[in-house]
Amino acid sequence: MILHVPSLERLVNQFAKLPGIGPKTAQRLAYYVLRSPKAYNEALTAALEEVKTAVRECTKCFSFTENETLCHYCEDINRQNNMLCVVEDPADIARIDTSGVFRGRYHVLHGVIAPLEGISPKDLRLQSLFDRVAAENIQEIILALDSDLEGDTTVLYIAKQMQNLNLANPVKLTRLAHGIPIGGDIDYIDHRTLGRALENRIEL
Amino acid sequence: MILHVPSLERLVNQFAKLPGIGPKTAQRLAYYVLRSPKAYNEALTAALEEVKTAVRECTKCFSFTENETLCHYCEDINRQNNMLCVVEDPADIARIDTSGVFRGRYHVLHGVIAPLEGISPKDLRLQSLFDRVAAENIQEIILALDSDLEGDTTVLYIAKQMQNLNLANPVKLTRLAHGIPIGGDIDYIDHRTLGRALENRIEL
Repeated sequence: MILHVPSLERLVNQFAKLPGIGPKTAQRLAYYVLRSPKAYNEALTAALEEVKTAVRECTKCFSFTENETLCHYCEDINRQNNMLCVVEDPADIARIDTSGVFRGRYHVLHGVIAPLEGISPKDLRLQSLFDRVAAENIQEIILALDSDLEGDTTVLYIAKQMQNLNLANPVKLTRLAHGIPIGGDIDYIDHRTLGRALENRIEL
Repeated sequence: MILHVPSLERLVNQFAKLPGIGPKTAQRLAYYVLRSPKAYNEALTAALEEVKTAVRECTKCFSFTENETLCHYCEDINRQNNMLCVVEDPADIARIDTSGVFRGRYHVLHGVIAPLEGISPKDLRLQSLFDRVAAENIQEIILALDSDLEGDTTVLYIAKQMQNLNLANPVKLTRLAHGIPIGGDIDYIDHRTLGRALENRIEL
């Protein structure tokens, strides 16, 4: 759809680059910005600039933080030091932490091994993970990665490298359980998930 | 969900103000911006600023333009001058024009009469519409407004005011036809639309 207003079309194109924003939504957003008071535009622009200057990676777990060195989670003295949860993205941490079940430490890989996209182990925060395991007396590593091809490859790679570390004390490697989501209707669950839920059934 | 990164949360809050963007989507967008190259951020910021400075309202139809006075549609000498399509928002123009059926002129009200939201006729570009009708020898006005309470109120108001204009030549007032969308499945059409489609049935 041609709008005949070049600057408006440029804004639509920029919005359309965001994930999950198609051309129609991008257009609605651009018109909204154009109609909204100048203050909104300035607040959004300021937030966009600030996020790029203020946010850095935690020097320990590589999560996002505004602190000089350690992030909120690495700083917290009330968390268990012997449990490590490995995630793909910083965004996963807030999701996992909101569950309230895990109170250990985190480690962000910033991706997963994906040969087809040219992402190899050296592109990820894997060496620093193994360094932490060797240095921090960690007893369990929860690999909270997606169960797709890339996630599985990354899990296998980590498991193999852990063996090569020759640690004095063995580290337990775990993954998240598969099963029916809470509130999920059995009618709408795919057969692989249902199969896994049957295999891992819990005795009452 | 608490992210423990204040500038990231501020960006999430700004994104969440956009129409149709919920808190989860806002968070995904903010993380995307944080991870994307600085060039994207700069392009988006520049587009946001530019759209506010470069875009103005057409002095004739009040659509958006970057031109000094008249917009793309008012400038176009190949369009019919005796037909006027009245729309609520500038965004409606591109949609209607893409259909290729209408080749007349446009007039943007910048809203509809909505007493509950405190929007009265004087807040809209209505007087300038009546001035145009009196000055431009218009023969038909298509009121391309939504058929909800506010749209219907605005249509009635315009129809009444048109009578008061006491024009030498009567102006035909029309609205968009209701019916089944092309490709629409009769099973999924609401009964009011179906009733209208039956009333306005077309002889083969």
